[in-house]
Amino acid sequence: MKELIELVDKHLDEYLPVCYPEDIFKAMKYTLMLPGKRLRPVMCLETARILGGDMTNVMPAACAIEMLHVQSLIHDDLPCMDNDDFRRGKPSNHKVFGEANAVLAGDALLTFAPQLIIEKSTGLNPEQILKILHEYTKFAGAYGLIAGQVVDIESEGGKFVKSPEETLDFIHLNKTAVLFRLAVRIGAIAANADEKTIEEFDNFAKKFGLAFQIYDDIMDEISTFEELGKTTGKDKNSGKLTYVSLYGLEEAENKFRNLIKECYGIIEKYHSKVFEEILKKLSDRIGSDK
Amino acid sequence: MKELIELVDKHLDEYLPVCYPEDIFKAMKYTLMLPGKRLRPVMCLETARILGGDMTNVMPAACAIEMLHVQSLIHDDLPCMDNDDFRRGKPSNHKVFGEANAVLAGDALLTFAPQLIIEKSTGLNPEQILKILHEYTKFAGAYGLIAGQVVDIESEGGKFVKSPEETLDFIHLNKTAVLFRLAVRIGAIAANADEKTIEEFDNFAKKFGLAFQIYDDIMDEISTFEELGKTTGKDKNSGKLTYVSLYGLEEAENKFRNLIKECYGIIEKYHSKVFEEILKKLSDRIGSDK
Repeated sequence: MKELIELVDKHLDEYLPVCYPEDIFKAMKYTLMLPGKRLRPVMCLETARILGGDMTNVMPAACAIEMLHVQSLIHDDLPCMDNDDFRRGKPSNHKVFGEANAVLAGDALLTFAPQLIIEKSTGLNPEQILKILHEYTKFAGAYGLIAGQVVDIESEGGKFVKSPEETLDFIHLNKTAVLFRLAVRIGAIAANADEKTIEEFDNFAKKFGLAFQIYDDIMDEISTFEELGKTTGKDKNSGKLTYVSLYGLEEAENKFRNLIKECYGIIEKYHSKVFEEILKKLSDRIGSDK
Repeated sequence: MKELIELVDKHLDEYLPVCYPEDIFKAMKYTLMLPGKRLRPVMCLETARILGGDMTNVMPAACAIEMLHVQSLIHDDLPCMDNDDFRRGKPSNHKVFGEANAVLAGDALLTFAPQLIIEKSTGLNPEQILKILHEYTKFAGAYGLIAGQVVDIESEGGKFVKSPEETLDFIHLNKTAVLFRLAVRIGAIAANADEKTIEEFDNFAKKFGLAFQIYDDIMDEISTFEELGKTTGKDKNSGKLTYVSLYGLEEAENKFRNLIKECYGIIEKYHSKVFEEILKKLSDRIGSDK
């Protein structure tokens, strides 16, 4: 796991050299290179590996997913969105580079990610690259990540088209789970996996993504700024719809444990130390039903 | 020309049906469907046609370029960027849908554009589609459009890495000419043109793009809100670097006429009524040296 994170960090840095005009590349790299768990690229690489693919072939696409993730964080932190001054324990992008550059840095990451896939995926054939780009565009946009963001904003304004339960699941299947789904799907495509296997991993990623979000909601309730590196208690104070606010802490923890158990059930036949470590770490504080 | 515009409008509308969550699709469509000259898609389609390609094959990519253009307008109008309340005579996107949705609508167009190319370009082969996507990502991001935006913002703050003349050309070759370049390059690729022809059209688009920007700078100086459908005199009042502020009105007009003349020189052998109409319309008020 640690080696994979280092490998991802090294490639993220190499893929994006600072050119003229330097300000935009510096803004892109600032949030991208903050130390992180690199969960999405690591899951992408590990999926490719356990399905018999070559990890190096999928490295550009794995890093592209992290770029997409970071783009969503940069725009999410903007004053007109979540208005967060800190990210991963450091001042957020717009606090350092200004709002205009933060908007543009997000835009630039959003187009650089597929450019990277096209230019550097030398070990994949054109059909695989096109399929990966198709997944990327579908999951990154209004049919995926952004749908989740929009419904999240709407629900904060008290606007619900669906029930609160359905709305909450919709938000996080799209806002949170979508990038884990994209990660394992791309890993599986790079390994030439069949449709059934892709769907199996997709199912894993949906459950993992929901568990991850419930964990996040629980942590927002019970953690401190020092532990998380970002402002806490915001959800509660803003009356935001979360798994904790909707179901209560105990029921949210039960949901979390069940999802983790289901994740173990799907993934265990692959004997992946990396996936086991990811699940174990996520459930360290809350406990799990493995 | 009028028929091509109508064809583009029809396809833009069809390609993007309003789904759940409706707010984001409505925000995307609002600025996209404001009546416009559709210069970029029209130039893309016409380039494909005069080089012997099938226009219908390149329609999705032509519309994708308009989406990219509209994305840049939506983000450009944001309070943290140019802070423009009007666009094409109507309230700008963030005035209607709020800032958060305007940021997300731009992001969504930026990923929907390549998704559209992948899903609907049924008349092109995978190599052509990949080449088109590569051009799209290169020209849309930090190596193209966004580089122009960033240097534009920097120069407003009085920060110049290069000379004012070089800076101004860099801004507009990237901010303005880049989408015309992308349009003719994609049209040529869809028609299977050779590299020399692609470069010839690219050269045309660079000159056209600069002429277009000089025209814009001159109009900002001499027109009214009613004529342009957007706030005028802003450049002058903000002390912004423009062709008029740098070279004076007369010299800017000379530059414009010379560029238009060069454009005619490159394109005339193709006997394209559409390109001639575009050049004629652009030079109506200032006059040209055809």
